[in-house]
Amino acid sequence: MTETDVRAALRAQRIEVPSWAYGNSGTRFKVFAQPGVPRNPEEKIADAAQVHAYTGVAPVVSLHIPWDRVDDFGKLASYAAERGVRIGTINANVFQDDDYRLGSVTNPDPRIRRKALGHLLECVDIMDATGSRDLKLWFSDGTNYPGQDDIRARQDRLAEALHATYQRLGADQRMLLEYKLFEPAFYLTDVPDWGTAYAHCLKLGERAQVVIDTGHHAPGTNIEFIVAFLLREGRLGAFDFNSRFYADDDLMVGAADPFQLFRIMHEIVRADALRVDSGVNFMLDQCHNIEPKIPAQIRSVMNVQEATAKALLVDTDALAAAQAAGDVLGANGVLMDAYNTDVRPLLAQVREEAGLDPDPMAAYARSGYAERIAAERVGGQQAGWGA
Amino acid sequence: MTETDVRAALRAQRIEVPSWAYGNSGTRFKVFAQPGVPRNPEEKIADAAQVHAYTGVAPVVSLHIPWDRVDDFGKLASYAAERGVRIGTINANVFQDDDYRLGSVTNPDPRIRRKALGHLLECVDIMDATGSRDLKLWFSDGTNYPGQDDIRARQDRLAEALHATYQRLGADQRMLLEYKLFEPAFYLTDVPDWGTAYAHCLKLGERAQVVIDTGHHAPGTNIEFIVAFLLREGRLGAFDFNSRFYADDDLMVGAADPFQLFRIMHEIVRADALRVDSGVNFMLDQCHNIEPKIPAQIRSVMNVQEATAKALLVDTDALAAAQAAGDVLGANGVLMDAYNTDVRPLLAQVREEAGLDPDPMAAYARSGYAERIAAERVGGQQAGWGA
Amino acid sequence: MTETDVRAALRAQRIEVPSWAYGNSGTRFKVFAQPGVPRNPEEKIADAAQVHAYTGVAPVVSLHIPWDRVDDFGKLASYAAERGVRIGTINANVFQDDDYRLGSVTNPDPRIRRKALGHLLECVDIMDATGSRDLKLWFSDGTNYPGQDDIRARQDRLAEALHATYQRLGADQRMLLEYKLFEPAFYLTDVPDWGTAYAHCLKLGERAQVVIDTGHHAPGTNIEFIVAFLLREGRLGAFDFNSRFYADDDLMVGAADPFQLFRIMHEIVRADALRVDSGVNFMLDQCHNIEPKIPAQIRSVMNVQEATAKALLVDTDALAAAQAAGDVLGANGVLMDAYNTDVRPLLAQVREEAGLDPDPMAAYARSGYAERIAAERVGGQQAGWGA
Amino acid sequence: MTETDVRAALRAQRIEVPSWAYGNSGTRFKVFAQPGVPRNPEEKIADAAQVHAYTGVAPVVSLHIPWDRVDDFGKLASYAAERGVRIGTINANVFQDDDYRLGSVTNPDPRIRRKALGHLLECVDIMDATGSRDLKLWFSDGTNYPGQDDIRARQDRLAEALHATYQRLGADQRMLLEYKLFEPAFYLTDVPDWGTAYAHCLKLGERAQVVIDTGHHAPGTNIEFIVAFLLREGRLGAFDFNSRFYADDDLMVGAADPFQLFRIMHEIVRADALRVDSGVNFMLDQCHNIEPKIPAQIRSVMNVQEATAKALLVDTDALAAAQAAGDVLGANGVLMDAYNTDVRPLLAQVREEAGLDPDPMAAYARSGYAERIAAERVGGQQAGWGA
Repeated sequence: MTETDVRAALRAQRIEVPSWAYGNSGTRFKVFAQPGVPRNPEEKIADAAQVHAYTGVAPVVSLHIPWDRVDDFGKLASYAAERGVRIGTINANVFQDDDYRLGSVTNPDPRIRRKALGHLLECVDIMDATGSRDLKLWFSDGTNYPGQDDIRARQDRLAEALHATYQRLGADQRMLLEYKLFEPAFYLTDVPDWGTAYAHCLKLGERAQVVIDTGHHAPGTNIEFIVAFLLREGRLGAFDFNSRFYADDDLMVGAADPFQLFRIMHEIVRADALRVDSGVNFMLDQCHNIEPKIPAQIRSVMNVQEATAKALLVDTDALAAAQAAGDVLGANGVLMDAYNTDVRPLLAQVREEAGLDPDPMAAYARSGYAERIAAERVGGQQAGWGA
Repeated sequence: MTETDVRAALRAQRIEVPSWAYGNSGTRFKVFAQPGVPRNPEEKIADAAQVHAYTGVAPVVSLHIPWDRVDDFGKLASYAAERGVRIGTINANVFQDDDYRLGSVTNPDPRIRRKALGHLLECVDIMDATGSRDLKLWFSDGTNYPGQDDIRARQDRLAEALHATYQRLGADQRMLLEYKLFEPAFYLTDVPDWGTAYAHCLKLGERAQVVIDTGHHAPGTNIEFIVAFLLREGRLGAFDFNSRFYADDDLMVGAADPFQLFRIMHEIVRADALRVDSGVNFMLDQCHNIEPKIPAQIRSVMNVQEATAKALLVDTDALAAAQAAGDVLGANGVLMDAYNTDVRPLLAQVREEAGLDPDPMAAYARSGYAERIAAERVGGQQAGWGA
Repeated sequence: MTETDVRAALRAQRIEVPSWAYGNSGTRFKVFAQPGVPRNPEEKIADAAQVHAYTGVAPVVSLHIPWDRVDDFGKLASYAAERGVRIGTINANVFQDDDYRLGSVTNPDPRIRRKALGHLLECVDIMDATGSRDLKLWFSDGTNYPGQDDIRARQDRLAEALHATYQRLGADQRMLLEYKLFEPAFYLTDVPDWGTAYAHCLKLGERAQVVIDTGHHAPGTNIEFIVAFLLREGRLGAFDFNSRFYADDDLMVGAADPFQLFRIMHEIVRADALRVDSGVNFMLDQCHNIEPKIPAQIRSVMNVQEATAKALLVDTDALAAAQAAGDVLGANGVLMDAYNTDVRPLLAQVREEAGLDPDPMAAYARSGYAERIAAERVGGQQAGWGA
Repeated sequence: MTETDVRAALRAQRIEVPSWAYGNSGTRFKVFAQPGVPRNPEEKIADAAQVHAYTGVAPVVSLHIPWDRVDDFGKLASYAAERGVRIGTINANVFQDDDYRLGSVTNPDPRIRRKALGHLLECVDIMDATGSRDLKLWFSDGTNYPGQDDIRARQDRLAEALHATYQRLGADQRMLLEYKLFEPAFYLTDVPDWGTAYAHCLKLGERAQVVIDTGHHAPGTNIEFIVAFLLREGRLGAFDFNSRFYADDDLMVGAADPFQLFRIMHEIVRADALRVDSGVNFMLDQCHNIEPKIPAQIRSVMNVQEATAKALLVDTDALAAAQAAGDVLGANGVLMDAYNTDVRPLLAQVREEAGLDPDPMAAYARSGYAERIAAERVGGQQAGWGA
């Protein structure tokens, strides 16, 4: 790839940011409130727009329902457009109602299953209003104790709800099915791994696609293998990017293991799936529990950009040649050459060419936005997970 | 051991229950409230007294400060005594104040460190008032990102706070230092493993002892080894019992891996540390997020009893002989013989001899207590973690 | 299920034993030779026949090619029949030739891929000769370093080899595809999880089925979920039973976590898949590195029987009722009641009804077989992995 | 640190290479032989000398007894000196004799314990002959099954053997005690973690020090914490460097997680422990199962150099200021700035200043050494682990 092509690819890259990253978050032990945190969806979108303003590659904001429910989603979409961004993926939430103590769509109680399905269908209504393409489904459903419920019956219930939701989708809409090893369910999780999500998507149809949340795997899982495998199968719909040392820590993407992020982006580039029309949606899903949220999002976007730039710099001809020759050290060396390159000057140049400040973190810090929202957003209820 | 000795040991066993197990708990995603949950320390103690009433081996209740702070701890102790139980370990909480976002005793800010130390010292004041022997210290302190703070400097600060607190203890009081692999800190935890807790205890003095929370280890950790090692060193002060499949799931002890609990109790029996005067405090520390709390505590106590009974039934002579002979299958077989024994009839007999119902779960269910508290405890603020 | 039905199910159960369990095995650090170890396939079969003689449920022996290659497989089958057992699954080995350093069917070198495929096809020839139904494929293929080879190209090569092999199978023959998290490949494993095996099987056809080796998962994996899921999909072909605390330890099944084995067998019974005609082949795959091999196999068979008996004793009506009612503790309690039952007397009775000694371990020990083979099998080359 | 100081530190760095890395190695499944592999200790030393010739920082070679046993160690030392290197740490091996099936120094059989101790003492004799400072002890001792042996008694036996060995050491000699989570023992490992090694070292005396093998931890372990903690305690004696994705994979250091290696070296630099006289011995311990061994060692040395260079470039003043200010993103950013720097030009310059080729890999490849040893080393028995 020529350096011109690399720069063009970096300029064309798109990363979707989550509305909830700008609200308060924490652990079961404590949610530390931060100054200036948004009190409503509009303020979240305003903050997200800052991230795009300084990086130029994050023009889309995911919503989470009911956290971001408003009376008029068309009006919210207009609000976003005024700030230079647009509404993206709609995230369903069937884990916070008291009714969902023993599950939502897999609950043994049919009344509760109907209620959960109703919420999923409502989310499609919202997609119609916002013009969103993607419905993202993460189910916290599962059990805490062996025997608590029937593993197989829960799969039947899950399949039924997914089917009904899929049928409701418009021709241009997609279902993104997320999996997660554990938490908040502690014994059984009904969609625990990519294989489960993949098997359900196969039965639903081509617009059902798997989401890889990089923090949702068992220790030792080779995530880039899953990326490559799902791309080969045409079933990788999206990423929820974040990073972790232990469980689903939801740290900034690239913070815990930048080499892993590079390997993931290498598979993306390898499969020519970086293109916006590839069908892979690159989203962030993180919790900035102790760090300020807007700069943490900017840093996260930059981390993805840096990993992408390195992946684009891999000398694919040399790599293929070394692989074909069985040259273990040589092939590994080609990959490491790209990884060890300092791509920050290249990205600074890409930003300048796009009319942006070469240093988004510094530019945001200088802008006074953080101080302004801290001063202005006084009173009201700060946004959060409402757990 | 004769069967008479086994029964005597089971009758003499003591398990301490945590006041907070009776309040609401949950995950970062949701706390599901339950009917009848206590609204104050007195109601928690009343519930704990139920567990003792039906099991006969749980006469002590741990308090958590500030969750259980009252104006008059002497009065609370009297209240407990009236219900047939007494106040046990005092648990400090230096993780829920907004000031502790970057740590408590290891915080880079000396003002916050002083505040945290002040709380620890206050807990000793409370111990004086309640007559508690043990101060349990768990620090959530750590960092989320590499570089966020200096690993070594934090150890210096930790040592300083532990020293000041230890100095404040009375001659009959002990410090129990707990370790935990991760959560809520996601990169560095300042007391992440038994080795760290042990090293600090060594420097403090003999009344500083290590607490093993069974859910606080990395995957693959051989917990019974740690039990045996700390007993050999005279540094095992207490257990926080619970069970887990993944991280710190805080499920009922014995629910996830009953064989592991048996192996732990085998090391306890092996070292003659089941005795109340052994210095090992057997405590529960669990979260009954989705199951009713009092019966979950009763079941947990019974699970510890069953594991203990099996451990007491190990044919130690046959085991020693097979071990000495290098008979791998024989020695393992002796242990498994005890584990595979159904000890429920034996425990039913022990209970009947103590004037208790042989089936604590059924007896509690019949008692109507659950229905009564659900009806009576209306209004007010249910107890919880207040995260 | 009535007790009569339980006993009948236990009598009808079938467990297949591996020829290689009777040979020497070890770790990369050391293979400890044992006295009396077989020197050829006939002696392995003779040892396997002992396991069946004392348990009555293990009449089938898996072979491993080339370790068990003989000139005349028909003669070997007759030899087995004379000893009361028969030849079962044929296991291919494409990991021990020097050519396979960088992979077998996924090797970048087409010559080596052809050689590996040739071996797979030869194994089908052997199946024709032995009358075996199942071809078991485990591929050690993978890479040790990022970049070493192309993840996706290796999947293409894998699919091609599987397709060619599947085409060669007779109408009554099956392909069993095994997955494994890691080892001996240390970065990428080409079939690392059940999802990968399942996806390939789907494309091959109905006689391609997934094998679950209980030791081949990441920490924290809920294996019984995979069992239930594959049964629901009609894609669970077989188990390789063993147990582990850490990685692929290949300890005796049920030795590390007997509760997990029970949960697995509960899913089997739940799906009525214990029947011999269910299509699920229950095999052992273990390494008795330090313990004597024949009694270790007997113990392993007994461990599976005990877990099965407990699973058969689950009060399914009570379980279903508690699950439907959302009674978390009640439903868990029903499962635990069965698990906590001592089923050894029941199994002793089943054995006596079948004309067997109620205590297989003791009966084998008394038989003098171990002493006889130690005395007779002198000279020659003991069987092993030949690593 | 000035750039001059950084270059000086890099020039002064010393990394010790293991003789066994040049012999064949593999997994329990297969050892793939490579052309040109040494047949004796002299040839191993000759290969090790190549690594030093091209990197300039690896002048010391560890020996492994009995793999490297020779009649005249003084002569071997002279041989090494002639090739520009010297003999370093002596590694004891008490895991490959048939007697050690159930353990060496912790074996229940006192005869075998005496034999194992005899070997440890013999290793000190060899140290006297070679002038080695360090005795490295790694014990594979442990058990595969619960109950197989007594956990506590094994600690007593371990303590006794360590004491006897420590007493035998000369005043300038040290004992380095290594820990390992598991393998080859699969249930209990007698020295499983740093805490155990540390506790034993404390009782022995100041010349007993802990060895951190970077591959010997449970998933999720924060290794740099252990580094920092042991440095604070004055008990970090050495590293065995390698890398891993899963278990003890023994891949090239820095290959699996280069960011982790950087964090480790950051703690080293933080504690001023890079200096040769710091008492920390930086050793490699790797298995080049599928890649050529000499270039793999060169690459490994370079990986340590690169991580070290980045650690030396950390702006410590800025880091301390951000940490003191509680600036989470700022402090992390200072660390990442150093990590993201491409230090290869700097290291090339350091090499040129030392009269070396700036590209050690290319220089070695051009040298023809690999072809020469492949041609010359024909016949004889290639060195390996002899498992």
